[in-house]
Amino acid sequence: MTFRLITTDSQTAARAGILATAHGEVRTPAFMPVGTLATVKTLSPEQIRRTGIQIILGNAYHLKLRPGEEVVEAAGGLHEFMRWDGPILTDSGGYQIFSLAQMTRITEEAASFRSHIDGSLITLSPEGAVELQRRLGPDIAMVLDQCVGYPCERKKVEDAMRRTLRWAERSIKTPRAEGQKLFAITQGGVHRDLREECTRELAQMDFDGFALGGMSVGEPKELSDEIVALSTSLMPEDKPRYLMGVGYPEDILNAVGHGVDMFDCVLPTRNARNGEAFTSTGRIKIRNSAHRLSQEPIDAECDCYCCRNFTRSYIRHLFIAGEVLGLSLITEHNIRFYARLTAAIRESIENGVFAEFRKNFLAKYLGS
Amino acid sequence: MTFRLITTDSQTAARAGILATAHGEVRTPAFMPVGTLATVKTLSPEQIRRTGIQIILGNAYHLKLRPGEEVVEAAGGLHEFMRWDGPILTDSGGYQIFSLAQMTRITEEAASFRSHIDGSLITLSPEGAVELQRRLGPDIAMVLDQCVGYPCERKKVEDAMRRTLRWAERSIKTPRAEGQKLFAITQGGVHRDLREECTRELAQMDFDGFALGGMSVGEPKELSDEIVALSTSLMPEDKPRYLMGVGYPEDILNAVGHGVDMFDCVLPTRNARNGEAFTSTGRIKIRNSAHRLSQEPIDAECDCYCCRNFTRSYIRHLFIAGEVLGLSLITEHNIRFYARLTAAIRESIENGVFAEFRKNFLAKYLGS
Repeated sequence: MTFRLITTDSQTAARAGILATAHGEVRTPAFMPVGTLATVKTLSPEQIRRTGIQIILGNAYHLKLRPGEEVVEAAGGLHEFMRWDGPILTDSGGYQIFSLAQMTRITEEAASFRSHIDGSLITLSPEGAVELQRRLGPDIAMVLDQCVGYPCERKKVEDAMRRTLRWAERSIKTPRAEGQKLFAITQGGVHRDLREECTRELAQMDFDGFALGGMSVGEPKELSDEIVALSTSLMPEDKPRYLMGVGYPEDILNAVGHGVDMFDCVLPTRNARNGEAFTSTGRIKIRNSAHRLSQEPIDAECDCYCCRNFTRSYIRHLFIAGEVLGLSLITEHNIRFYARLTAAIRESIENGVFAEFRKNFLAKYLGS
Repeated sequence: MTFRLITTDSQTAARAGILATAHGEVRTPAFMPVGTLATVKTLSPEQIRRTGIQIILGNAYHLKLRPGEEVVEAAGGLHEFMRWDGPILTDSGGYQIFSLAQMTRITEEAASFRSHIDGSLITLSPEGAVELQRRLGPDIAMVLDQCVGYPCERKKVEDAMRRTLRWAERSIKTPRAEGQKLFAITQGGVHRDLREECTRELAQMDFDGFALGGMSVGEPKELSDEIVALSTSLMPEDKPRYLMGVGYPEDILNAVGHGVDMFDCVLPTRNARNGEAFTSTGRIKIRNSAHRLSQEPIDAECDCYCCRNFTRSYIRHLFIAGEVLGLSLITEHNIRFYARLTAAIRESIENGVFAEFRKNFLAKYLGS
């Protein structure tokens, strides 16, 4: 069994569960920091580990381009290559083909595109994406989907959704590594009927989990919120639900209330490298001159290595001087922030006080 | 007592000793990795600590420019600011004024120059350099010296050396922080008589240690070797001797044979960031395609975090992809290499087998 539901909240659709993988259990709701190229940028595996994060995300598209799946496979797979012995999920590349690749041409058979790194021609079919992830060896592989942006004409959204469905059928028939889970991805943009059709169809196939794809591509939050609520209501209760590419703490709290179990997002890591830190009272820009002489940690409520040791004054100095240590200190802090947030969410669900927790957290975090 | 001599080698002038500081003892010969801006580039204090390195170097000139001594002082000094609780030595800035500063004008009173960061006008006198280091709070401060390059006309070398002597007299009279040591710096280029005069004069003043400055500025190795041997022979036996800005393992082994106790150099850290690693069989460039599928560590004989965990294949990938983790992994390894080298040197001196150790190490390292 892949997923065990522990509790469902009485006031919202929030749920706490346990996802079983070949590299250990993941308590949900869970956040996956992004480790695109077999590294969560700036951190060593031991630094990731001590943030308390349970599972990380890699990216099959990026790893195919650099270093190439043969290099990862030669090491014995992603876990051995990057020396992370916890669970790993890899995205298939559907979103990257949509957002990064050049001269993309998508046929029924496969997606063809040029690498955004060196322009080389690459073809990726649904079967190829599963095979690629078989060689990379994550605990959880994602099917290849076809993403569209927002806004987008309905006909295009519908065609991409239907192709994603047909590709899902081909994906699930493709052999994968032993013990490896495969998650489906829904498409359909912000159209309720298309999302419903896609989710219902996929729910009938024997996937280990279900992801909402093609979200956070520019659509208004009210619309995505509606689509998330609709989609989770149509997904099997006994399988994990994963909202891809989301998001800010407020977005996560919102989606958890709709019954989402898993998240990934570049925000904590990318914003860290831009000098932005998440704190219990909101986000701060460490370069701000207000921090020049501040002997306070980034977040007095945080127990991470960065907050236990360093002042805002010192970290600001590192950023102003362009010192790499600043990047890894805030990255570790931000990931710890997300790990603490999701742990607190789980606890509140288990204690039946999620709605109250969410309200209190947001009041403090958003300063409202 | 600042320095206690433990053993002097019978075949060479090599010595093992213990340097006492307000933040603990340093067993010599010792290597100090460079932490110019209150950070050993890419590493956290705990990563530095586990390399086994005993003392690090900061730079008063750089810290004055960024973040400014008032910021470091507000934190309670360098140790608190960067959270390194071991010994710290700061260089005064004499070498940086010579090599980095712009529009430099040196009078008997002080050096005036423009910051290489923002062009602001700065004046640093010998007294000011001691006062600056009083505020920064290292365990060991260095006097302000006047450096010249190589080649350089004798008259200029002589004038700079004499001024360095007069500045040393002013420096030692300037109040410094409680428990803070002050080291003198000799000048005189590669002229034996000038170095001799400078060293003899300084040796009569009550400094806590003596450094050779103005070395590694382009002079042939035979000349610098001769100057090092001469200089150490004129320095007090009961005070530590510090060869500034040196160097490669072979240079360190050579200088230890002449009785040098302390070293600092950017090589292990800077070369790491360029993808060059020191190993027991010589230096390797990690970007080399030969390492693409290598499942070997950087150095099979090394016990650092990097070598215990990661393959050349993985680290090469990090460098090719521009991932920051690669920089910190090789930096930690290179510093560990220097820490192990100097620990092995000390042990060989204590066991009376330094010459043999040096010969064996170099045969393997240089592949000869």
